[in-house]
Amino acid sequence: MNKRTISIFGATGSVGTSTLDLVRRDRDAYDVQALTAHRDVEGLAKLAREFEARFVVIGDEDCFGALKDALSDTNIGVAAGTQALVDAADLDPDWTMAAIVGCAGLEPVMAAIEKGRTVALANKESLVSAGALMMAAVERSGATLLPVDSEHNALFQCLAGGRIEEVRRLILTASGGPFRTKSLDEMRGMTPAQAVAHPNWSMGAKISVDSATMMNKGLELIEAYHLFPVGEERIDILVHPQSVVHSMVEYKDCSTLAQMGPTDMKVPIASALAWPRRIETGCGPLDLAAIGRLDFEAPDEKRFPALRLARAALRRGGTAPATLNAANEIAVAAFLEERIGFLDIAALVERVLDEADIAEPRDLQDIFTVDRAVRARASEMIGEFARGD
Amino acid sequence: MNKRTISIFGATGSVGTSTLDLVRRDRDAYDVQALTAHRDVEGLAKLAREFEARFVVIGDEDCFGALKDALSDTNIGVAAGTQALVDAADLDPDWTMAAIVGCAGLEPVMAAIEKGRTVALANKESLVSAGALMMAAVERSGATLLPVDSEHNALFQCLAGGRIEEVRRLILTASGGPFRTKSLDEMRGMTPAQAVAHPNWSMGAKISVDSATMMNKGLELIEAYHLFPVGEERIDILVHPQSVVHSMVEYKDCSTLAQMGPTDMKVPIASALAWPRRIETGCGPLDLAAIGRLDFEAPDEKRFPALRLARAALRRGGTAPATLNAANEIAVAAFLEERIGFLDIAALVERVLDEADIAEPRDLQDIFTVDRAVRARASEMIGEFARGD
Repeated sequence: MNKRTISIFGATGSVGTSTLDLVRRDRDAYDVQALTAHRDVEGLAKLAREFEARFVVIGDEDCFGALKDALSDTNIGVAAGTQALVDAADLDPDWTMAAIVGCAGLEPVMAAIEKGRTVALANKESLVSAGALMMAAVERSGATLLPVDSEHNALFQCLAGGRIEEVRRLILTASGGPFRTKSLDEMRGMTPAQAVAHPNWSMGAKISVDSATMMNKGLELIEAYHLFPVGEERIDILVHPQSVVHSMVEYKDCSTLAQMGPTDMKVPIASALAWPRRIETGCGPLDLAAIGRLDFEAPDEKRFPALRLARAALRRGGTAPATLNAANEIAVAAFLEERIGFLDIAALVERVLDEADIAEPRDLQDIFTVDRAVRARASEMIGEFARGD
Repeated sequence: MNKRTISIFGATGSVGTSTLDLVRRDRDAYDVQALTAHRDVEGLAKLAREFEARFVVIGDEDCFGALKDALSDTNIGVAAGTQALVDAADLDPDWTMAAIVGCAGLEPVMAAIEKGRTVALANKESLVSAGALMMAAVERSGATLLPVDSEHNALFQCLAGGRIEEVRRLILTASGGPFRTKSLDEMRGMTPAQAVAHPNWSMGAKISVDSATMMNKGLELIEAYHLFPVGEERIDILVHPQSVVHSMVEYKDCSTLAQMGPTDMKVPIASALAWPRRIETGCGPLDLAAIGRLDFEAPDEKRFPALRLARAALRRGGTAPATLNAANEIAVAAFLEERIGFLDIAALVERVLDEADIAEPRDLQDIFTVDRAVRARASEMIGEFARGD
């Protein structure tokens, strides 16, 4: 079998590291083309040597000198900055992992899509903020998107069992987060420490808070809408505290296919890396007899208004999802800094959305403009919330 | 779209009736070629008229005259007897439903397979008793087998998500039957009425008792072994009382795909009928939030020795599974007649297997010979059991 050439954008982060762990299991099957990182010079240089990358890019231009020095005794090409990330996406690997976090990942993802590549998509902002633009580019270029989020990867796997026009419902499962059983009154006083204690997945603080508010699931609803063209009204959310079922597809014949697995990102990453084949991950087998039971319950939009806000933003379209996302990031950061309360997160997002002018973005620059404006406005509002206005 | 020509062997039974219900939903999509029944002349004639069948066969030759009379004012071809069933399988439909119950179904199934047809397989004996012969014929002819049993259909659907060589485990789910939580002592005194009260599926008496002993799952293990060449040691059984998950495939990357659905045979039948597409079944959506929870537990071979016996028969190979199946039928019939106790069913099967000479069957006639001999021997043993020997 020919080696598969791969590039990894965001190589030193959690998804990038897991991807390279999988590559390490079958080193000779892959030829690593480009690796990128935001600021982790040491980590990137080490990976570049180990995987004999041809080209590395550090996002932060201030780190260029250090990276160049670290790899001065190698033939590895070195570059820095946003344009260099886009240039790296111009290379022609068989497979690209798009795992840069946040808006910084948008341009490289778009560049890879526009080249018609096979792109494993772990950057959530791409679809949440710029889903329509991204999918229009996929349509033009014939690129293949392989979702890496465990839920979307699950849906992707279940969709092998039928055609998209035969789908009755996509069912995104949600753990319900640490406050699943809490009342609104109880949630009001929750601290950042309580919010980041996710029951199933080991995650960063921001995404843990998103799980606690269930905004995470709202954002995933928006992603699913773009990835799988079944219509927003055919995408349901189902609370499943054990996170064993990662999502499901119900077909029109009443067959429902579900993908289950351990709560380990290596599984969806391996699915995307090996697609349309499967590779060993080193994960343990699923022992449902030991797990014993799986629970399911309807989500409660009263206690988790983020679900309602995300669906409303999706219906509103245009820059509304980008607005939701940017406002949420500012609100979560303020909550983590204990400047606003837990329930203020959704309240702030709602207020920002209420007053926002929503337009149809023409390009990524429009998204960036909205992103900056919303962040500024949301930050202003934090002061008002903090004062209890 | 062209009409799909279909033949239904066992048209008046439960599976045949459900198949025709589905055909009725989209009448113009199908051209019904042959319909067959065992003895239900009136039912068969009625279906033949409604679906404008070209050819009907009644298995019992004594019914030939009555069927001929019933259809004398039509152009529908009429025949009777085993050879006529085989002849009917010589017609060339796009799709054949093999739903004749018992050994009577073996020859028509084999005939359809040998012609390289697409065969929806609902006849359990085919694979349990003659699996190696059937699969060798599939190999020679290039026939396509579409399993209709809900468990095997679930596995078939889940296998769309990967390749057979990428499978780590097939997981057959079992309801555990009405005696799932009973001790051996409690089971000892169970009556036929208690045994046929299946918690989830509405089934005949024989199959309900098989569910109570879990022999049903043992037989399905043997079927799965032949349908999906992963090796017996890779097929697990998992007790799942709610019967919502119909079976699962675990792949080597630790992704597990599960098929779920209502406990309605229309769903797997529709899957086989429409394959590789999907059609409406009129079944309600799966409401996991209302179901609330799914439980899983390891099967207990101590309380359900049928599981152990079936696996041992599968490992032993040759005519051992046919022996298991025939002995079980006699034992279940004796239990239903209250001639032996519930626990005697597995004990009788084990005794028959212990003393059986196992050989490699060369053809279906060898299977029929073993089947007859085992039934005779098992019937003899019933007397001994009944006397408490």
